[in-house]
Amino acid sequence: MAEATQRQDSLAKPIGSFGTLEEISIKLAGITGSVKNRIGKKCVIIMVADNGVYEEGVSSCPQVVTMTQSINFIKGITGIGVLSRFGGVDLRVFDLGINSDFPFPGIIDKRIRKCTSNMAMGPAMSREEAIRAVEIGIDAVEQLAREGYQLLGTGEMGIGNTSTSSAVLIGLTRCDADTAVGKGAGLTEEGLANKKKIIRRALAINRPNPEDPVDVLAKVGGFDIAGLAGCFLGAAYCRLPIVIDGFISALAAMVAYRINPLVRAYMFPSHCSEEPGYALIMKELGLEPILNLHMRLGEGTGCPLAFTVIEAAEAVICNMATFKEAEITSDTYIDIRRS
Amino acid sequence: MAEATQRQDSLAKPIGSFGTLEEISIKLAGITGSVKNRIGKKCVIIMVADNGVYEEGVSSCPQVVTMTQSINFIKGITGIGVLSRFGGVDLRVFDLGINSDFPFPGIIDKRIRKCTSNMAMGPAMSREEAIRAVEIGIDAVEQLAREGYQLLGTGEMGIGNTSTSSAVLIGLTRCDADTAVGKGAGLTEEGLANKKKIIRRALAINRPNPEDPVDVLAKVGGFDIAGLAGCFLGAAYCRLPIVIDGFISALAAMVAYRINPLVRAYMFPSHCSEEPGYALIMKELGLEPILNLHMRLGEGTGCPLAFTVIEAAEAVICNMATFKEAEITSDTYIDIRRS
Repeated sequence: MAEATQRQDSLAKPIGSFGTLEEISIKLAGITGSVKNRIGKKCVIIMVADNGVYEEGVSSCPQVVTMTQSINFIKGITGIGVLSRFGGVDLRVFDLGINSDFPFPGIIDKRIRKCTSNMAMGPAMSREEAIRAVEIGIDAVEQLAREGYQLLGTGEMGIGNTSTSSAVLIGLTRCDADTAVGKGAGLTEEGLANKKKIIRRALAINRPNPEDPVDVLAKVGGFDIAGLAGCFLGAAYCRLPIVIDGFISALAAMVAYRINPLVRAYMFPSHCSEEPGYALIMKELGLEPILNLHMRLGEGTGCPLAFTVIEAAEAVICNMATFKEAEITSDTYIDIRRS
Repeated sequence: MAEATQRQDSLAKPIGSFGTLEEISIKLAGITGSVKNRIGKKCVIIMVADNGVYEEGVSSCPQVVTMTQSINFIKGITGIGVLSRFGGVDLRVFDLGINSDFPFPGIIDKRIRKCTSNMAMGPAMSREEAIRAVEIGIDAVEQLAREGYQLLGTGEMGIGNTSTSSAVLIGLTRCDADTAVGKGAGLTEEGLANKKKIIRRALAINRPNPEDPVDVLAKVGGFDIAGLAGCFLGAAYCRLPIVIDGFISALAAMVAYRINPLVRAYMFPSHCSEEPGYALIMKELGLEPILNLHMRLGEGTGCPLAFTVIEAAEAVICNMATFKEAEITSDTYIDIRRS
């Protein structure tokens, strides 16, 4: 990272003027151990699971959409399908708990259970199930690392998963519901009030221990969140950069961070989510999103765009001329460097 | 635009969930007259000129950097050179007033004069010169339109041009210097205080008429700003989308908007500039940047990244499945649409 900083400061521009692009390249140097990185294979991992809390009416979508959209991921016709093709990005979809009696061709079957239990009535899952879901995420990243992927993104699909994410956020931080709970894909004001009520009930019934992220995950989380938390842990273990995309992914990143704060050095947030809890998570992680697109679709849709920015950062550090190469005279050189 | 909105609302996602990507595609439909647009040739126009106010010590860089970096644009080794190659974007560099006795191969010679006059001592240029510079910008875009370019970006190079831009901003809006004047590529606090003093003096001496944008441009602007204002007018005339990049480009967009407010419909801002005046300009234009990268390099460096986001928006509207194509059942369909 020190070498990358030195190179950035030697490029023919006022020091620091490429802003976040400089920071990205320095962070990547720390991750890979090389100042110059050429990013080849890229993949967005999508963790899919249904949530028992759906039966409390917390979502504007019917539960079957989890299954339908998962099939559409494979067909390449969803938002992330279109954007990943646009960006030359591969997709890998994991079924951790779709509410269906049969698996789906093209979707990696790691189903722990058909849907979690309703967190408003008791724990969403057992501690063992939560750990299993985290391990599936770690394994997924290790497999991608073996296949030579160099940049990963995170997405999810699971009707009700902004509710579980908000519940985990409150469980970990003890923040109030107004800070943590939003309208998801598009609830009404009434729907939002009900969602807050159900989340408060889930926390009151389960009393998760804020000092134990796995306990919070098990009691009021989802298989998708746990799987994504595993992806972040796996990326750090495999020394791979990984993009946080949206609220649910960010919450999973925070769970991973609470398990081991070192994972933060491998994370790159994409766009600023519209969910209110997102800002709180970024504050704890000390990270800032690079895209401002008012998106609230999930699926990892911000990842292909964030990948382009990361690749642009690499183009700068790899290909831009130094002051000497730019034949800027020594007087000029000194003046600009000072600026 | 109504047809594009209708198509966006029929795609298999909660309405509006692609946020700014949807707005971009709708705006593009209005510009081109087609719902689906395939963007082929892209170009960043760089207007280069020196500023007489340089002699007041308003910049952290020596004036020769304008010339050196312009030559480096052609060599492809500057920030914008690297990023435009990365993004498959062409560059066209116009010399409207480099302080040099000879022209440069590869740079389009439209030199009005070697450098403007020092605005702290009198008008930077005559009204005729300002109009000529605006016309060069219009002509540049018309030429690109004839060559089949479909997406344009704007960049600049000219030591001292954050000073002229801030002076024009105050001249047009009568805002105070603290709102309009920043550290440019990297002034010290002392340098910033001097810059504010010089800008105040330039405005006091020239007394530009805030109701007459060409008067403000001539008295306290620069050839580069005037040329870029012409590019925005030309883009609207030729029905081409054009990206605003950074503070100086944004200020030029505001000048064009004051000349004819219809130009606004053709403008897409890229990244949020670090200069304080940028927010004021976006507020007047009613636009919001899509990238948050803390860049302060100029040269149009944000354009290639903004182009990618615009192309991604087109990929969504062109290639994403509608609810019917996604085989989401009629019940589901109705519920999601309502969300």
